[in-house]
Amino acid sequence: MSYHYLLDLAIILISTKLFGLMTKRFNMPQVVGALLAGLILGPAAFNVLQETEFIKQIAELGVIALMFTAGLETDIEEMKKSGKAAFIIALSGVLFPLAGGFLVAMIFNKGDLTSTVTPVHLQNIFIGVILTATSVSITVETLKEMGKLSTRAGNAILGAAIIDDILGIVALTIITSMADSSVDIVLVLMKIVLFFIFSGIVGFGFYKFYKNWTEEERNKRRFVIVAFVFCLLLAFCAEEFFGVADITGAFIAGLIISNTDKKEYITQRFEIMSYILLSPVFFASIGLTVNVPQMTPTIILFSLILLVMAILTKIVGCGLGAKICGYTGRESLQIGTGMISRGEVALIVASKGAALGLLSTVQFGPIVIMVVITTIITPVLLKVVFKEEGVEAAEGKVALNK
Amino acid sequence: MSYHYLLDLAIILISTKLFGLMTKRFNMPQVVGALLAGLILGPAAFNVLQETEFIKQIAELGVIALMFTAGLETDIEEMKKSGKAAFIIALSGVLFPLAGGFLVAMIFNKGDLTSTVTPVHLQNIFIGVILTATSVSITVETLKEMGKLSTRAGNAILGAAIIDDILGIVALTIITSMADSSVDIVLVLMKIVLFFIFSGIVGFGFYKFYKNWTEEERNKRRFVIVAFVFCLLLAFCAEEFFGVADITGAFIAGLIISNTDKKEYITQRFEIMSYILLSPVFFASIGLTVNVPQMTPTIILFSLILLVMAILTKIVGCGLGAKICGYTGRESLQIGTGMISRGEVALIVASKGAALGLLSTVQFGPIVIMVVITTIITPVLLKVVFKEEGVEAAEGKVALNK
Repeated sequence: MSYHYLLDLAIILISTKLFGLMTKRFNMPQVVGALLAGLILGPAAFNVLQETEFIKQIAELGVIALMFTAGLETDIEEMKKSGKAAFIIALSGVLFPLAGGFLVAMIFNKGDLTSTVTPVHLQNIFIGVILTATSVSITVETLKEMGKLSTRAGNAILGAAIIDDILGIVALTIITSMADSSVDIVLVLMKIVLFFIFSGIVGFGFYKFYKNWTEEERNKRRFVIVAFVFCLLLAFCAEEFFGVADITGAFIAGLIISNTDKKEYITQRFEIMSYILLSPVFFASIGLTVNVPQMTPTIILFSLILLVMAILTKIVGCGLGAKICGYTGRESLQIGTGMISRGEVALIVASKGAALGLLSTVQFGPIVIMVVITTIITPVLLKVVFKEEGVEAAEGKVALNK
Repeated sequence: MSYHYLLDLAIILISTKLFGLMTKRFNMPQVVGALLAGLILGPAAFNVLQETEFIKQIAELGVIALMFTAGLETDIEEMKKSGKAAFIIALSGVLFPLAGGFLVAMIFNKGDLTSTVTPVHLQNIFIGVILTATSVSITVETLKEMGKLSTRAGNAILGAAIIDDILGIVALTIITSMADSSVDIVLVLMKIVLFFIFSGIVGFGFYKFYKNWTEEERNKRRFVIVAFVFCLLLAFCAEEFFGVADITGAFIAGLIISNTDKKEYITQRFEIMSYILLSPVFFASIGLTVNVPQMTPTIILFSLILLVMAILTKIVGCGLGAKICGYTGRESLQIGTGMISRGEVALIVASKGAALGLLSTVQFGPIVIMVVITTIITPVLLKVVFKEEGVEAAEGKVALNK
């Protein structure tokens, strides 16, 4: 029996807390600290911690719990109102990075792949596809920490991120179907549509059952367990039968239960489980997956341009989409900023592409750098764009506190 | 990325709850239901669920959390008072099963082992060693459910179980050192003593630090995390440096923190995490490890006699020890009953022995049967021996409630 996971867990808990305190002292969200903790303890720096199967699965459960509570805390009326807007924001936030990534890749990629089977333009489009990814979990945690998750911009971000996930799957499917003839695009699209029909029907049925049952049932613990089981099942079905991300299923499950009056109770319970165990492991694990890439001047330049492109295309793409849909300039900037983080989603997409010969090991380094920096910078930028008063007013506040 | 763990988890949560409700309706503790759920869904019956690495590690974390909260809820003054008694109870509760198991094995074991290197008398003693094991977690959960953990008998059980663990390690070490020349008994004993000295010193230091720190710190979440980190580290050190069970370390960590005024707050938080996730997985996983053994008339007879011996030797052994130490007859019976459960501890010991050629596959079946039945019967018997009034008085109560 191995018990090294005990030490790993202890190290993760204490280091994410300590780094979180440090970043908080620098007026940055604590989640940045947790990300840094993983990065510094992991293979990228001190190599004290490696990503074990245990850490990976607790982390997966962590992101599911996170998206479930995000669903629970979503204002569904607000979400409905912002539905069309979210779609436009997501679409524009996919097209801009896709084009931008393709452009940067075209300049740098001379087709030096080991696999010459894949045409160079497909490789270049794939860089664009990686850039379309959005990892909403970092943004959710940051907005929660700042108490801004239920704002108009927060709701738009959540909605757009869910749609972005789906558009991302579509984009990934299209490009892999071009490289791999066994994937059928039409079937994939149909399954995605079916998933939403399925969720609607099952969700409505569960909602009716849950509402009646919780009125009769007295043991509150059971509310939580049944809700969690529903979340797990919807997450599982999403992946297993429809090819949709499990976190999308978890989010929708939360959304459905958010219509009942048990939402606060359940949210509280999940938050306790998250902060004691699941969240620190999840955020640290993102940093743990990062390895130090090989570096040459060309690669460094490529990395920098790719990074700038990644940040700007999301801010401009999503921001523009938001502006068109009638959000204020400030809100549009907030929405665009909330979508910058690429996180684990982009890493997953990248490794799928690498397996299909769409991405060379040379290009993997810049992708990793882009992912790490967009992920760490998002909470920092969010803090800036959500600041309620101007800098001077804020400074006055600090002065008053002294 | 695999997501089948989502379905596994959903099945475990819902089935342990449903079976728990059923056993509750039959006036049995819910933990029996959770054990049955694992047994019925696992390889022993329907084989819907297998023990994955994920389930195993969540289960391990579950038993650590369980023992940590048991430590937190222990009345340390009561424990100190019952210290000497706990030692006598544990010692007598080890000697009786050891002798009883040896006796039964002597009658049935004709030395039909494939490995003829190990002498038959060692094999027979080993059956006795397996019978000395006590799995206190089932008892802890049952007593918690009944609100009897902080009784005199409850404290004696906890103390004796911890000492039983240690005596069990000693017994296992002695017999394996007889079969395997690379194990040094004196060294093992010294390490166990050192562990308690180490825990005492580190525990006192941590207690001082924690008390001062929690007075200044305002963020209550940090109380919980720091306490959990301490628990994990002590559990890890126990295994890694001293060869003591990790759950003993976790229990002692809980015991140390139980002296502070934060114990209720921390206990509550851990109980939430336990009931949502960790405990159902742990109790179901015990059932999942069970396979249906091969059966012949002789093996069935051996199994039955071994089972009766396993139950009687703990009740008589521990009960006698308790009676000598001045507990009432009723309390002695309660203490003896609380120690019957063999659980995962006996399975671990058995598989270690099998690896060393001390146990044949033929004998493994009866051991499994003994473990399963002692584990399931313990909560049922505890319910009986802890019943406050006589049957008639209880019936009167039921009548009043109607």
